[in-house]
Amino acid sequence: MRILLVGASGTLGRAVAAELGQRHEVIAAGRHSGSVQIDLTDVDSIRKGLQQAGELDAVISAAGKVSFAPLADFKPALYGDSLHTLGIADKLLGQVNLALAARDHLRDGGSITLTTGILSEQPIVAGTSASLVNGAVEAFARAAAIELPRGLRINVVSPNVLVEAMDSYAPFFRGFEPVTAARAALAFSRSVEGAQTGQVYKVF
Amino acid sequence: MRILLVGASGTLGRAVAAELGQRHEVIAAGRHSGSVQIDLTDVDSIRKGLQQAGELDAVISAAGKVSFAPLADFKPALYGDSLHTLGIADKLLGQVNLALAARDHLRDGGSITLTTGILSEQPIVAGTSASLVNGAVEAFARAAAIELPRGLRINVVSPNVLVEAMDSYAPFFRGFEPVTAARAALAFSRSVEGAQTGQVYKVF
Repeated sequence: MRILLVGASGTLGRAVAAELGQRHEVIAAGRHSGSVQIDLTDVDSIRKGLQQAGELDAVISAAGKVSFAPLADFKPALYGDSLHTLGIADKLLGQVNLALAARDHLRDGGSITLTTGILSEQPIVAGTSASLVNGAVEAFARAAAIELPRGLRINVVSPNVLVEAMDSYAPFFRGFEPVTAARAALAFSRSVEGAQTGQVYKVF
Repeated sequence: MRILLVGASGTLGRAVAAELGQRHEVIAAGRHSGSVQIDLTDVDSIRKGLQQAGELDAVISAAGKVSFAPLADFKPALYGDSLHTLGIADKLLGQVNLALAARDHLRDGGSITLTTGILSEQPIVAGTSASLVNGAVEAFARAAAIELPRGLRINVVSPNVLVEAMDSYAPFFRGFEPVTAARAALAFSRSVEGAQTGQVYKVF
């Protein structure tokens, strides 16, 4: 298979590339790195990146930014002025737009795999934006799965906090059981190399 | 209790008012009706509406618009140009902003109750935006619940399609088991008159 991996230079992305690269051609994409430049908040870069990547059997996102801030810092505000804006523009609509562009580009029977995280189900303090975005992406994927044409599939991987991220994230994730990026990467393999659709693969 | 009910003139809102109005003072709010004018996409109207309503023990939203359209009509596009815009601005950020404004206004121990729907879990064709928005609101409420100050609570009611809406919605909800608005209204009573927080009360 030919697989486009957005967020290939991140901790999770590197593990996904290591797992799938053993059996497939993985084309690395990122904002500032990789052989293809894709910024999830730039629709043109998504379209051009897919064109540049050529024929594809799978598109994976291991990318997506959100704002972490105490709920007290969130004020009622419209999109653009809200602390929710980054998460909605990047990890939410960015991944949705990647999926929609991939729908128009993938070979028949291809797959789309997006990334969320445990906060959709199990919240942490300062994580309301991450929770909101993760819940949205998971529900979108369940819904898109029943309408995708040409045998295309879509799934989500929702990992726990990563072992490799605990240096900086440990204080926010006390009592959470971190998983290695390599273990989370197996769920991407299950999505890409399996046959299910509309699934949320929880790695927790 | 003094309860502000946004969307009071809708099918669901009228049933909620009938249920809670038996025991409490329900202040009706809506875009163009009710004793208080609140448009969820207008932050100033939310703030002014809460001020106008005075001291409150509960704020309920039985409102929120989304776009229904086949997935094929959704193109990769930024917020503002995307078919997801209405749902994100109205049912998603509108209800989040109502919750954030209510946080700053409710009496100690007060409650916030938002509305989603079965599509967060069980999708229908043309419902990707509704699913996305419902999933986002449910995850937001779970997360906000652990950070709300002063004993405030937040829950979500997720009803099945309403019996009263089947005249127009039946073709989209074949095989779904419709519930009466009166039955869905009981879940709002459970949220407002109960003591739980961070819950999604599924009426399906």
